[in-house]
Amino acid sequence: MSAFPLPPGSTIGILGGGQLGRMLCQAASRLGFDTAVLTPRPHAPDARVAAHSIVAPYTDGDALEALAAVSDVITFEFENVPAEALNRLAAMDAVVAPGSRALSETQDRVVEKTFLNRVGCATVAFAPIDSADQIPAALERIGAPALLKTRREGYDGKGQAWVRAPDDAAAAFPAIGGKPAILEARADFVRELSVIAARGRDGQVACYPVGENRHDGGILHLTRAPAPGWQAVQPQAEAFARRVLEGLDYVGVLGVELFAMGDGSLLVNEVAPRVHNSGHWTQDGAACDQFEQHIRAVAGWPLGDPRALFETEMQNLLGDEAEAWETIAAEPGARLHLYGKGEIRPGRKMGHVNRLGRAL
Amino acid sequence: MSAFPLPPGSTIGILGGGQLGRMLCQAASRLGFDTAVLTPRPHAPDARVAAHSIVAPYTDGDALEALAAVSDVITFEFENVPAEALNRLAAMDAVVAPGSRALSETQDRVVEKTFLNRVGCATVAFAPIDSADQIPAALERIGAPALLKTRREGYDGKGQAWVRAPDDAAAAFPAIGGKPAILEARADFVRELSVIAARGRDGQVACYPVGENRHDGGILHLTRAPAPGWQAVQPQAEAFARRVLEGLDYVGVLGVELFAMGDGSLLVNEVAPRVHNSGHWTQDGAACDQFEQHIRAVAGWPLGDPRALFETEMQNLLGDEAEAWETIAAEPGARLHLYGKGEIRPGRKMGHVNRLGRAL
Repeated sequence: MSAFPLPPGSTIGILGGGQLGRMLCQAASRLGFDTAVLTPRPHAPDARVAAHSIVAPYTDGDALEALAAVSDVITFEFENVPAEALNRLAAMDAVVAPGSRALSETQDRVVEKTFLNRVGCATVAFAPIDSADQIPAALERIGAPALLKTRREGYDGKGQAWVRAPDDAAAAFPAIGGKPAILEARADFVRELSVIAARGRDGQVACYPVGENRHDGGILHLTRAPAPGWQAVQPQAEAFARRVLEGLDYVGVLGVELFAMGDGSLLVNEVAPRVHNSGHWTQDGAACDQFEQHIRAVAGWPLGDPRALFETEMQNLLGDEAEAWETIAAEPGARLHLYGKGEIRPGRKMGHVNRLGRAL
Repeated sequence: MSAFPLPPGSTIGILGGGQLGRMLCQAASRLGFDTAVLTPRPHAPDARVAAHSIVAPYTDGDALEALAAVSDVITFEFENVPAEALNRLAAMDAVVAPGSRALSETQDRVVEKTFLNRVGCATVAFAPIDSADQIPAALERIGAPALLKTRREGYDGKGQAWVRAPDDAAAAFPAIGGKPAILEARADFVRELSVIAARGRDGQVACYPVGENRHDGGILHLTRAPAPGWQAVQPQAEAFARRVLEGLDYVGVLGVELFAMGDGSLLVNEVAPRVHNSGHWTQDGAACDQFEQHIRAVAGWPLGDPRALFETEMQNLLGDEAEAWETIAAEPGARLHLYGKGEIRPGRKMGHVNRLGRAL
């Protein structure tokens, strides 16, 4: 078993394959750690900056053995890691952070909202849906329009359908693949916010200032952080984040997506048990960025300072927006981050840019 | 031949092996580049964060072929790269930046000071020394005490001996290994400064604010940047840096070490044709850090903004000073950088910490 805090020179294992893993590797290397990435995809963005890379499905027993053999702690960049992978790692006495509870409580949207309500985080009204004929009664209770989503997987707006009237039920259920679903009341929010928070092995909690997010076609487009008027919502956001972190006995960074309602209250939309796209502004705008913060937490180090140093706007570069790299690179005050993905596809997250504003 | 600017996804080759290569790799990966490291040492700090690593002597023909085959441009982290390596790469039509002139004018201290004086950079008086019996006459001309150094190699105070009187000549020459040498007048400086500067493929020049350096036993210990009173010396420092960059037809980042004299004038002590330890403060204290700046320059990108955002103090962690990592990690406003070197040895550069002060 590993002894914490892990000394520099230890190896951080990552169930990875994408840009979040890549940025975790970059942060780990700054602190003197090696990284080992297990990814199903060859030439993955994170594998190309890691000391060790293993290309295999997440559930491949030999690959998990190899990862556990070189890693002093194992984390993940992706909340849909199969539970089987974590169970196998646990059976090998590998230390995984955040633990399997972070996934078991957040991979299924009904379980997640039930958990959130139990620990005192307000959410929209919701109902589990197992067949189309359950939708009308649920809609009656929740109110129309409501959003039908698959219970598992689906992100960036995929696997969702609006139900505006009982008659929509027959079409909506097959539209999301006829899978076990959740029907969620529409939140009449005035803006979307998120809070990125971390919890250390000693239970210490650190919250970044709340950011304001703009989505486009279900995909995050812009984050402004700290959000305008963030001080008014920060106490509630932090209280929610702390309840989630403690309720999951969490170690690491997570993102809590919030709806800001017209009356000033907040609802939790969802929890991402990992570093989060809406926290990318911290790389250039905060004293310690979310990637380093996650590495610190899982390695048992003291948490870093989550204070914002600048008003920052983070813009995702989706698909061919990344072709503007040369223009962005010439823009004063813009910090460009590209993920090393070969092929540009519509909506694919190719990179992001942090634009620094006023010093705080 | 490569077309510039190199698009993201291109590969930056590095003749490396140490922490400067590691930090170049980190910066390159943020911009979406892959890196390929050639190093004589297995388990080198930079090879562990690179997409490709080749372990072989710098002059190994097959290794250089392999590096050239995967790299769109090749750079180095070390000014004592054998000229033979660069000549072989040139024969393969590999693009190397900065070019071989950067090394041929700076690897030999007599050639370097001759070059500096020719392009209008003031230095201390000096004389080439090929045998002990040339020392007394040179000392007579230069004035005692004077510093005898090997013409080539030697860094961090190694390969140096003071000559205080003609009688010291017989002992000093063998003390530095009896190699071709330079005798340099002592500079009665009031402080040591340095300027980090970059030149792009288009001839654009960007200079960081001058930093003030404190050495301990010949090894850099602290850099404060911008140096107190930096505005008074910045024009002269920038003029010197520009003369060096243009005189070498340089592409990339270099460090110019300066002596600040009592009358407010500056002398150039030496030029390091690479990213420089006294520029590490830029990672957390400047708008674009020196490592990203170097990658931008060699890739033909627009140069980044060299503006200082914070008063920053950089402290090298030498030898067992790195054992304080846990204390430093808990210090608010301190940004820790560790190099992933396994073995702590006295004086070995294990990492550094940037402490942020007032926002600028």
